[in-house]
Order: sequence, then C-alpha cells, then structure tokens
Amino acid sequence: MKTDATHTDLSAKLRSGTAALAALAAALFAAPASADLLIDNVNGITIGEDGEVERFVAVWIDDDGRVRETFEKRERTPKDTDNRVDGKGRVMLPGFIDSHLHIMGLGFGALTLDLSGTNSLAEAQQKIAEFAAANPSRPWILGRGWNQEKWGLGRFPTAAELDAVVADRPVWLERVDGHAGWGNTLAIERAGITAKTADPDGGRIERIAGSGAPAGVFVDRAGDLVSQTIPAPRPAERDLAFAKAQELLHARGITAAADMGTTIEDWQAFRRAGDTGRLTLRVMSYAAGVEAMDLIGGGGPTPWLYDDRLRLNGVKLYLDGALGSRGAWLKRPYADDAGNRGLPLLTPAALRNQMSRAALGNFQPAVHAIGDAADAEVLGAVDELADSYGGDRRWRIEHAQIVDPVDLAAFGQHGIIASMQPVHQTSDRLMAEARLGADRLDGAYAWKSIADTGAVLVFGSDAPVELPDVLAGMAVAISRVDADGQPFGGWRPEEVVDRERALAAYTSNGAYAGYAEKHFGKLVAGQRADFVFLDTDPFLASPDQIRGATVLETWVAGRKVFDIDAEN
Amino acid sequence: MKTDATHTDLSAKLRSGTAALAALAAALFAAPASADLLIDNVNGITIGEDGEVERFVAVWIDDDGRVRETFEKRERTPKDTDNRVDGKGRVMLPGFIDSHLHIMGLGFGALTLDLSGTNSLAEAQQKIAEFAAANPSRPWILGRGWNQEKWGLGRFPTAAELDAVVADRPVWLERVDGHAGWGNTLAIERAGITAKTADPDGGRIERIAGSGAPAGVFVDRAGDLVSQTIPAPRPAERDLAFAKAQELLHARGITAAADMGTTIEDWQAFRRAGDTGRLTLRVMSYAAGVEAMDLIGGGGPTPWLYDDRLRLNGVKLYLDGALGSRGAWLKRPYADDAGNRGLPLLTPAALRNQMSRAALGNFQPAVHAIGDAADAEVLGAVDELADSYGGDRRWRIEHAQIVDPVDLAAFGQHGIIASMQPVHQTSDRLMAEARLGADRLDGAYAWKSIADTGAVLVFGSDAPVELPDVLAGMAVAISRVDADGQPFGGWRPEEVVDRERALAAYTSNGAYAGYAEKHFGKLVAGQRADFVFLDTDPFLASPDQIRGATVLETWVAGRKVFDIDAEN
Repeated sequence: MKTDATHTDLSAKLRSGTAALAALAAALFAAPASADLLIDNVNGITIGEDGEVERFVAVWIDDDGRVRETFEKRERTPKDTDNRVDGKGRVMLPGFIDSHLHIMGLGFGALTLDLSGTNSLAEAQQKIAEFAAANPSRPWILGRGWNQEKWGLGRFPTAAELDAVVADRPVWLERVDGHAGWGNTLAIERAGITAKTADPDGGRIERIAGSGAPAGVFVDRAGDLVSQTIPAPRPAERDLAFAKAQELLHARGITAAADMGTTIEDWQAFRRAGDTGRLTLRVMSYAAGVEAMDLIGGGGPTPWLYDDRLRLNGVKLYLDGALGSRGAWLKRPYADDAGNRGLPLLTPAALRNQMSRAALGNFQPAVHAIGDAADAEVLGAVDELADSYGGDRRWRIEHAQIVDPVDLAAFGQHGIIASMQPVHQTSDRLMAEARLGADRLDGAYAWKSIADTGAVLVFGSDAPVELPDVLAGMAVAISRVDADGQPFGGWRPEEVVDRERALAAYTSNGAYAGYAEKHFGKLVAGQRADFVFLDTDPFLASPDQIRGATVLETWVAGRKVFDIDAEN
Repeated sequence: MKTDATHTDLSAKLRSGTAALAALAAALFAAPASADLLIDNVNGITIGEDGEVERFVAVWIDDDGRVRETFEKRERTPKDTDNRVDGKGRVMLPGFIDSHLHIMGLGFGALTLDLSGTNSLAEAQQKIAEFAAANPSRPWILGRGWNQEKWGLGRFPTAAELDAVVADRPVWLERVDGHAGWGNTLAIERAGITAKTADPDGGRIERIAGSGAPAGVFVDRAGDLVSQTIPAPRPAERDLAFAKAQELLHARGITAAADMGTTIEDWQAFRRAGDTGRLTLRVMSYAAGVEAMDLIGGGGPTPWLYDDRLRLNGVKLYLDGALGSRGAWLKRPYADDAGNRGLPLLTPAALRNQMSRAALGNFQPAVHAIGDAADAEVLGAVDELADSYGGDRRWRIEHAQIVDPVDLAAFGQHGIIASMQPVHQTSDRLMAEARLGADRLDGAYAWKSIADTGAVLVFGSDAPVELPDVLAGMAVAISRVDADGQPFGGWRPEEVVDRERALAAYTSNGAYAGYAEKHFGKLVAGQRADFVFLDTDPFLASPDQIRGATVLETWVAGRKVFDIDAEN
C-alpha cells in the first residue's frame, strides 16, 4: 500500500528546529512595510553579474524590497537611509533556491503524526492522543512510523488499542516500512470492512480469531481498502500544509523553490497565499502534467505574480521511475535483477508529443529521467525538438542520476539544465552500487562531468524525499561524503564541484533555471533582496562545518521571514 | 441535442454594435495610467450615500481610479487637476451592474458563426467559407441558425455541400431550432459515424440513398454523436471568449457583472485576464457548485483581486429548471400539461446541505428558483438556516419568477436578495400565461411586490439567454411593455417599479448583492469611478426612449473602456 517509501522518516527529520514558527511568522507579517534599509557590517558573498563570486560588506535595499546597491570594503555607504541594521559581521548569502522539491508533499508530511521515535505501545498511544487533541479540526488522524518489534509487543497492535485513545475520528497509521497500516474501528467502518471482506490480492487483513472480524492491522495491499477512503484534504488543510512548508523552507534558508508537479489544488493554495499576503516563498511552478499545465497556465506561462513570488514556468513530465524500486529505465538489466531494465513511463512518441505541446505554448518542460536509458531518451528528444522550437528554451532534465558516459556530452547542447540533488548521492550510494554494479557508475551522480559539458547545473533536495537542507547539500556537493564521513575521501570524488559552482547551483543558476535571473538569485542591484545570514563562511569552512552550519536569519524582499532567535 | 433553446438567436443579437472593439481595447489599454482627472459639464445621476437619487455636474477622480469628489450645480470645482474632460452636458450614470449572467457563455456564443440571416444555401456557404477564413486557428468551425425551409431548398443540406467550402477542419452547425445538426465529412469521420452506425434512440441519421452512409444532417439525439466529439475549448479560446464578453458588456454600459456558475476553467480565464492587465470588467463570481466553490475559493470567498475587479463571492445552486421546458418546479400542475409539476433538482436535504456548506465557509449561496414550489422551498430553507448562520448573509434567490402570493412576504426576511431579470417578463409573457393559466400569475415576475417586502431587488439579463441590454431592462422594469409596445399599458402593470428602484437595481443594489457596496455601484467619494455616458436622461425619457437610448462611453476606474465613436 505504500506509494513512496522515501517519505517514511520524514516527520522526524522535519520537526527539528521548526517549533513556534507560526507565531514568529504572525509577528513578522504584522510589521509595516520597510522603507529604505541599509544592512552593513556583513560578510557578504554572492555570485555577481559576471558569474564570479563577489564579496561585499553592506547592502542597501529600497522600499520595494530590491537591492539598491551593494558596497565593497572601504566603499562609502549612504548616510541618509531610513533604517540601518548592523549585520554584526555575519555571513550573508543570497537566499537559497531549491530547484526540485514538492512543496505540498513537504507540508502535508510535516502535518502528520510521526511515531518513529516511540519505544512502546503505551508511548505511541500517548502520542496519538496528544496529536488528536492538538488537532481537533482534522477529520482523520494520519501518521506513520510505528514498529511493533521495536515496541517489544510480539504481535500487531489492534483497533481496540487505538479506539482507547481516539474513538471520535478515524485513525490511520502506516507502519515504519510502509507495508502495513493500523486503523481504529471508525476507520475500518468507514472503509466498510467486515468479517466478510475477503483479503485482496497481495494483501492480508489481520483478523480476530473466531469471529474473523478485522483486528486493526492491514498488510500490504489490504491497506488500500482503508487508505482509499481517506478524503482529499480540504482547502483549509492545504493552506495549513503550504504555510508549514513555507516555514520549513525559510528555516533552512530557502527563499525560492521549483515545485515539481503542481496540481490545480496546489496552485490554488499558492494563489490563496498570494492573494492574502501570506506568500513569502518564491515558487517556480511546474504543472503536474500537460492537462494541469493548460488549466493553470492557459496559453502559456503565467506572468510573475505577487512581486516575483509565483510563476507557472512549465510542466513536470515523468519518463521513468526510481532506482531503489528498480523503476528507473536502464540500458542494460539491473545488476541485482537480471532481465529487468526498468521501464519508460512514456513512449518515445508520447514524450515528444508532450514536450512539443509544452514548447508550443512556451512552457518549459522538466523531464524526470533517472536511468541511463531515460536520460539518453530525453537528451535525444531535446536534440530532435530543438530544431522546431528555437529561442531560449532551457530544457530541464530532472535528476539525471545515471548517465551513460557516451551521453554526457549531449548535456552541453541546446542549453540544457541539469537539475540534480546532491544528497541523493549519499543516500543512494550503496543501493546504486548494488543496482548497477561497479563498472556502470562512471556517469552516476556526475555533477562535475555534466557541468563541464556546459550544461547549467542546479541543485535541489527533492523534499520531502530528502530534507530540504541546502547546507548538507553543499557539503555533499563539494565532498561526496555523507553525514557519517563515509566513504573516506568521498565517493567517486572526481565528481565533486568547487564551492563557487555549488553556491551558483543553489542560488543564481537556480534562478536562471526558472527564468528568474532578472528577478532574484544574486545580491546585485535591481534584484530582490532575498538573503540568509549564516554562522559559517562556506568558502572557508570544511564540508563538515558547512553541514553543521546554522541558518540564523532568512529574508525575502528585504523583510525577515525567519529568525533563529525567535525559535528559542 | 439542444441543451438550451434560448441560445439560438444569440449571435445575431450580439453582433450589433460590437465590431472593431478589439482594436479599440488595444488602443485604450496602451494608454498610461491617468493621474487626477476632473470631468465637468455632465448631467450626473447616481444613487447617493443615503440611497436617494442625487444629481451632480462634475466628478473628480483620483489617480487610483476612485471618485475623489462629486460636485453639485454651482459648487466650485478644483482648478489644480492634472486633466480635465468636458462632459458636454451628457448624461452620466454609475456603470451598470448585471446581477445575473454567464460571462463565458456570452463570449463563446459571440464567437460562433450565425447563419440565421441567410436566405439560400449559397449564401450560407459563402458565410461559412468567410468565417473559416477569418478564424484560421479554430480547430472546429461551429455555428447555428440555418433553416433549409427559409432557403427554399426542399431538402436538408449535405456534408458534401459543406466540404465544398470547408474541408480542412470539421464543421458543425446547429439548425435554427436546435433540433438538427449539419456536419461536414471531417466532422462525421471524427465522430466515427459510418453507414453501419445505427440511429440512436430519439434520433435519426440522414442517409445517402443506397449506401446508407451519413448524408450530413443528424436529427435530434443523433446530433449528440457528433457534438460530443467536439473538443473542450483550449485556454486561448477561453481567453478570446472572455475578451469578447467583456467588450460586449462594456458596449452595453456594463462595468460589473455577477457570473452565475463559474467553473475552474472560467475562473482561470478571469485570472489570466487579471494577471496580464486585461481585466476591465468587475466580476462577482458564483462558483458552479460546491466542488468548484471549494476549489476556487478554498476556505472562503477570495479577497477582492485586481483593484476590485474579481472576487469569488459564493456558489450558484440550481433548485429547478425553466418554465418554457416545464422544468420549473410548481406547486400545482402546469396548466398546459396536466399531471406535470416540474421537479426539484435537489432534495430538501441536499439543498440545505449545500447551502450550509457554503454558509459555513462564509460563501454566499445564490439559488436558482423559478417555479413557485422552488421559491417556497428556498425561502423555507433560508428561514431554517438563518438561525444557524448569523451575520450578513445576503441569501440570493435567482430569478424568483413565479412566487405563490402567500410566500411573497418571506422575501422580506433574513436580508434576502431577489435577483430578477426584467426582460424575461416580456420574453416569457405568453408562454407563462399558457404554462400557469390566468389565475396563477399574481406572483409572476413580481418585482414591485417583492421589493415592497423589504427584499433587496437587483436586476440582470441572464445573458446569453437574453441580450445584456440594461436599457431595455430598465424600460421593461418601469413599463412591463415589450419592444413592440405589447401589451398596451403593460402586463400586470401593478408590478412596475419606479425609475429610482430600476436604477438602484442596476447599480447600487447590484453592488450590495455582491458584497461590493464599499467598492463600486455609486458615484460617491471613495468608490471606483465606473460610469457610462448616455444620450438620454432615463429619469425624463419615455420607456421607449430609454430602450432606444445609446451608450456613448463606458469607463471603469476612471479609464475609458468603450467609446461609440471608435466603433464608427
């Protein structure tokens, strides 16, 4: 019943460092619009107009929230500003841009109950009761992460044990591995499951001995019987999820993000936030398929809306699946599954047709391609379509995880953007070695090789699949070493990028990849004053220190949207 | 195959007086934003702050497009304005508000080919060819209004006769009565209809003698076989239809309108217009059902968007059908169809449930109720719900055409808004007499009786069912006489309203009914400067003269959006 195994441990990761953000946001947004503002005494670093790293010590911001001017050491700063803030010598970087994530998935994930830390049934029951009490308006109580083995229970938990703590609303909790779900009596009743309900193919209903009535746990596909009855989120829940995602991202220093797969419901949530002045994240949106693209965008991309805070850029297309589940489409069979090459989710004709349909409307296609066959296919499609669709197309390839070395050079053609996720490399390393074998890894997570072709390299997290942790991503990008220091010296360290490239991939290139390079991404005159204060200089620190660095403050358009001090 | 018989003659009506508007609009929108503007030497009439008619001779408009001040005769006008326009003594009224219409239906109707004026097959063929040539991007050529009897053809036209003028695209043209459709070969092929296709129930495929192949005309339900294959409009077509509707409405002096049944596709077209600065009509939107309401509005009505040009107010619900087709729900059987009372489209529980669902989110319900049983039902539902949902609810009843006199008083309770369409009275008169009989007309189209209860009376056109002609509506409202002067003295003339009420129903009350009374609807300080110039004073002219009056100019937010001189 699990549709995305990678979401399992999400809640635990997300919870750290985000408490009390709602209260902070309320306080911040109540402040009047700032007039001219000078922030001086900063250790400022940005990609400059010419694409090179520049340093500055002060930034002057106009009352539209744009950078009026930056000042280098010993340059004279203006005396006549309305407001002056002392940067206290802290490191200032452009606001981070996450070029590939799922905003609503991140928000919804953060709103569900996480039981992965519980060590007994009683502890889990207490957490469930507390969560239900804290969320009285939720029609269903949803969560995940329980593990009866860890609890020492020696059996599955029961519906009655859930009823004991929540009886007024249905409860549905996924097991830690996603292969079982635990419901209370109300959830089972809503699903219409009784003693007479047969086990579905590929699933098993745990039953009470004797009566055969459902006991509470539903294994594998039996869980679908319950989960399919969970109602779609109400708009208010979507708004809450979006607000939560925005908070989580700002707490990580992220001021702009490419949403990969925006539905009309997602879009409406973004617009509601914009319409009511609650949109602080800059969202570069890629519609969930061509139908959603047409519905959201109409004949073409939207304009930049809400002072450069929202734009439908294009469409997200899926050409294959993921490596872990062997859905990635490979040129040769999986090393650990002879005869299986994964499979394409679109025929060659359908891929070209959908890319053409997007390009005809000047929408930007962003094609998910993980396996080497998928990457070759989309590279070929771009090559064919580039003749018909001239101009500034910025064809995006999402993930580009496993590339046949013979195909690498094609990334340098037609202005392709390689949208990659550094932390996937460390998360996937052992799995990728198993799936591909040692001799097929030359083009795996090959950031540097791809960037060296001339492709525009941008980085993202794929949140909620991974934490939207830019600092961890930077550390991996320049080291190819994981949080535990493994492997020593880095995995295929020839693919590390230098710090300049890593910064660009998380800032200016991310803006370029989303047609935003005239609006934000650099701390230069005329661009939006989006920036972070860090406690660490990423050009001087070790990868470990960068990973452990702290985002102190996050500002969007010259206004603070996150302050670590308000968290404590 | 006809879903709405009232649309038939639309194109012909709409075409008059709207040519070349697109060019005008382009010229107007290219103009820079106006600064302060004084328009003097006008014969200004508005409903004032106190609800009484006020006269003024000049209006001073600020650079936000709001009325800064109006000036009565002999009051001193400011000397220091940036711009001054001589009103040349013309009549100025607040921009008209049409409180019930279907914006996209109006626009799409105006974009299809109208053959109702053709007198021969050859003439029709020429018009079809011209239309196809003038609309090269339309994937289907759609139209209506042909009549082989009028052509003296003595038989139905054929697919081959259409192929002779348009062979590169499918063509589908409805007969004048809507009971047959005429397609070309490509349309028939797209529908997959061959000699082997059987006639459907309730329909007949005209066939070529001998081969049995479809000849081109499809009678009654056989037409569905073709019409169901016509693709949904593309976003660009929707944008075109919206622009056309806006033009048509401005040409009639309409500056604001209540859209009754907005789909998400419609809404996206409105937003695209707003996002790109092409939205000049003020749209008060009522979603097409509660699902659309949730999707568009989220947890509640949208804010006023685009400087008071768009707001989702609530939801349109249908409690019954129409009188002409005997779908209106009556307390007693139709006089001309014994045993038939029409029928409700919602159960009492479903009506209350959907009204509650709207009211819970502070959405405004607007319930279509034409028959006396339907009106009684919705009045009862409001009475029951009013206890649970306090505050300023403005329950809307749309049409309120046939009301049992015993139910009239209930309109005065709970702040109900009666949203009525004067021209329906003249269009329906003979039909209504036939459907109801002479003794059941006391509460029919009873504008005055309803307004006298204290209900807020607002007027609209139901376009495209009728032309969005406010001046005709005003004439009918104060006379109950049709364009031919029938019946002499007016039909049930006790229900005429006075000119003040008619003006309010088309201006200030229309704004109130859409929660817009603080934004527009009156030419008083602080409201948007939306107004029309007329060649006739509706307080001095005869009903006939009002009907024949000309809208000279239409202005929205202090900027001209229609000028009759640009038409000629």
